Amino acid sequence: MNAYTGWALHTDKYQITMMYAHWKNGSHLERRAFDLYFRTLPFGNGYAVFAGLERAVHYLEELRFSEDDIRYLSKQPEKYEPAFLDMLRKFRFTGDVHGMLEGTFVFPNEPLLRLEGSVMELQLLETALLNFIGYQTLVATKAARIRTIAEGDALMEFGTRRAQESDAAIWGTRAAYLAGFDATSNLKAGDLFDIPTRGTHSHAWVQDFDSELESFRAFAHAFPDSCVLLVDTYDTLKSGVPHAIRVGHELRERGHDLAGIRLDSGDLAYLSKEARRMLDEAGLSRTQIVASSDLDETTIQSLKNQGARIDAWGVGTKLITAYDQPALGAVYKLVARERNGAWQPTIKISSNPEKVTTPGVKNVYRIIDRDTEKARGDLIIEEGHAIDEEQPLTLFHPIHTYRKKRVHEFHAVNLLQPIFRDGKRVYELPSLQEIRRYHAEQRELFWEEHLRLLNPEEYHVDLSDDLWKKKQELLQKIYQTIRKG
Amino acid sequence: MNAYTGWALHTDKYQITMMYAHWKNGSHLERRAFDLYFRTLPFGNGYAVFAGLERAVHYLEELRFSEDDIRYLSKQPEKYEPAFLDMLRKFRFTGDVHGMLEGTFVFPNEPLLRLEGSVMELQLLETALLNFIGYQTLVATKAARIRTIAEGDALMEFGTRRAQESDAAIWGTRAAYLAGFDATSNLKAGDLFDIPTRGTHSHAWVQDFDSELESFRAFAHAFPDSCVLLVDTYDTLKSGVPHAIRVGHELRERGHDLAGIRLDSGDLAYLSKEARRMLDEAGLSRTQIVASSDLDETTIQSLKNQGARIDAWGVGTKLITAYDQPALGAVYKLVARERNGAWQPTIKISSNPEKVTTPGVKNVYRIIDRDTEKARGDLIIEEGHAIDEEQPLTLFHPIHTYRKKRVHEFHAVNLLQPIFRDGKRVYELPSLQEIRRYHAEQRELFWEEHLRLLNPEEYHVDLSDDLWKKKQELLQKIYQTIRKG
Repeated sequence: MNAYTGWALHTDKYQITMMYAHWKNGSHLERRAFDLYFRTLPFGNGYAVFAGLERAVHYLEELRFSEDDIRYLSKQPEKYEPAFLDMLRKFRFTGDVHGMLEGTFVFPNEPLLRLEGSVMELQLLETALLNFIGYQTLVATKAARIRTIAEGDALMEFGTRRAQESDAAIWGTRAAYLAGFDATSNLKAGDLFDIPTRGTHSHAWVQDFDSELESFRAFAHAFPDSCVLLVDTYDTLKSGVPHAIRVGHELRERGHDLAGIRLDSGDLAYLSKEARRMLDEAGLSRTQIVASSDLDETTIQSLKNQGARIDAWGVGTKLITAYDQPALGAVYKLVARERNGAWQPTIKISSNPEKVTTPGVKNVYRIIDRDTEKARGDLIIEEGHAIDEEQPLTLFHPIHTYRKKRVHEFHAVNLLQPIFRDGKRVYELPSLQEIRRYHAEQRELFWEEHLRLLNPEEYHVDLSDDLWKKKQELLQKIYQTIRKG
Repeated sequence: MNAYTGWALHTDKYQITMMYAHWKNGSHLERRAFDLYFRTLPFGNGYAVFAGLERAVHYLEELRFSEDDIRYLSKQPEKYEPAFLDMLRKFRFTGDVHGMLEGTFVFPNEPLLRLEGSVMELQLLETALLNFIGYQTLVATKAARIRTIAEGDALMEFGTRRAQESDAAIWGTRAAYLAGFDATSNLKAGDLFDIPTRGTHSHAWVQDFDSELESFRAFAHAFPDSCVLLVDTYDTLKSGVPHAIRVGHELRERGHDLAGIRLDSGDLAYLSKEARRMLDEAGLSRTQIVASSDLDETTIQSLKNQGARIDAWGVGTKLITAYDQPALGAVYKLVARERNGAWQPTIKISSNPEKVTTPGVKNVYRIIDRDTEKARGDLIIEEGHAIDEEQPLTLFHPIHTYRKKRVHEFHAVNLLQPIFRDGKRVYELPSLQEIRRYHAEQRELFWEEHLRLLNPEEYHVDLSDDLWKKKQELLQKIYQTIRKG
């Protein structure tokens, strides 16, 4: 099981089942378009941060069925015909993909990926794409929330032990870093993605010695220039901090500074203020205070409100598992079928209006006000239709249509970039550093009302007039068919 | 990045940092013992289901540093000395491991794994073991809850698209299966672990045709003997079920049965009862009803209470992410140091009594009443100390010591089995089928008061008298040291 080969079975069986049924039906090579998107923002946030594209790109490039995969499928009770399995042996992704850039601020119901290709290949991809993009987008969004609250403080990802297995640790770390974290404890992620790594010692180190002081001295001996001492094994203020100060003075005599102390339990607000005072009084004002203890944006906010003196935050479980909402709930929906060389939009209805799909092959434009250089809203419009930047634009809410606003001077940025054409990648993957920088710049496009953590102002994602009308017509048509029975 | 090699960097940096500091200190080969356990049961459940041992065994067997890993470490700002890196090149696991068998019912504060070896190697393992065992134990526990509620119904794992990346989908599926699920949609897991796979078609299949009936016919043509039709794309009772019945009759004329229909939205209680009535009236009483729609033990219980007529349940997001508590919070603690050839117990204190560790190298015995063949409690006792089955045994709560009970006729089963000795595996890995059977048998050991989902009766995990006294003595000693300053 390698990282990028043998991925064909990382899917739900029904994808293979549908591929086979299309093949039996002779429709497997017909051209379709699918959108990947989510319907609801996670964590009550005002935006999500798109992530996972690079993983998806590698998957699409390397996707094929190994002989082992074929052998496994040939033994299934569904008894797929050998000619079908032979076709799978030659399977390669041959379609077109447009996608958002990683780090982009994204919103419900706008396509994050738009795929065009044979129905057979597009069906196979669904599960893996949702799996990759759903998780990274979720963690990147959580990380962006934490970054908002932490302001300029250092943020470190510490979650590997609590991650949902090994891949989550790696890709979650990547997502956290691109959305503003500064470092990770995970060495594999550090190696794969060139993310700075951090880590000093645990309680076991201290317990391993006959005294805390002895343990601190031994650690400082090994790392005179990057020594961060965990001070809460016995008693933070009576034992840990005084011992750290003593070792800090010993280090100074040898020309080094004690880099930091770490608090991992107790009342972090009180302890950090007292520890800061003790360190400063001892002349160790350059020694930083690191905190780690089931932190997330809520606890960090509360600690800051209490005046905690913490310079760096280690965030574990709550980030890497997206604890308060551990799934994004992304979906992948058929939006158009090719008929006689033209796209025919399709719609999926639901008794819940939020779940009705938006038909057709579409682009997403971000409408940016020329005066303020702030985003006013996103406009979803059919592929091939242009936006006239010379004319004022009326944006209206696609469900609550009475909610309108008019934008006069703007530029419209197409967010869906070409990634694959005819199965060939036409997009150069940026480095993770570039993605991280791009994300940080994007933040400037949004008013703080959209960025705040609690009850953010809703950002408008609107349909073009034409698209809105087309959607209504399709809905009418389907309901008429159902009524006729 | 292969499945079992290159695992050395699947760890937190501080493990390497501590290994290095021990090496600098000359203490890296000293022998230690660590326990892996959790402190609190997830989901408010009365037990957890231990899982992940096989994954941990493969990890320990294959663990080594590749040249790429060494190169990465050599570039770190900590500037590890080359002699240390040379030692890592030859690193192999050489320690002893005792562990619970997968599928065992386990409880807070009892060692699930007990490891003895050099402090250097035991430190390295911490992060990966917690990552592997924490996740599988969490999902197995969630799956066992769902199995309790589903009683004899078929349970299918459908969560891959919402899993936290690729590994979680695979190992979560394995955990679900060993704790009583019957099948999965995940083909990779099906292939790796020989788990039956299931899956038919999605809404996209139906949308892809000009009419629902046409789509059902095409699907039945491909799978005449395993055809499960998704009936909620347009209108379940007005369109989906009548069309499924029509196709069911057509299949019957050709000598086949319609295997099932699937409901994926709406009021599953009402729709399943109506659909059952319609199918029965049409003579399709063998056609099963499958449900899938954000299900978990709570929704399944509610649907059953409402008399829903559902034969098989597809469970996705809520299981694979352990949605209501996405991390187990397992810990890995130093419990003993070797001094002059003997184990010297160590303790980690905390202002929270629940977080104080239990010192020493220990075994866990399950005390089974000879009359009822039901478990009365677990007893943690120092390695080398035996339990006399001829004498009545008094079990008392380790924190609330006034809570006691006396057991007369019992047998005591040692739950910690030898897995590795001197780095060699001494344990034959059972098949997943055997683990699943063992788990189902273990369920019989427990009174239903412990198994119920809401407010289960607490199961006793007690310390032997000697161990309890030793723990108190160590605590006294540490607090005296702190008071002396």
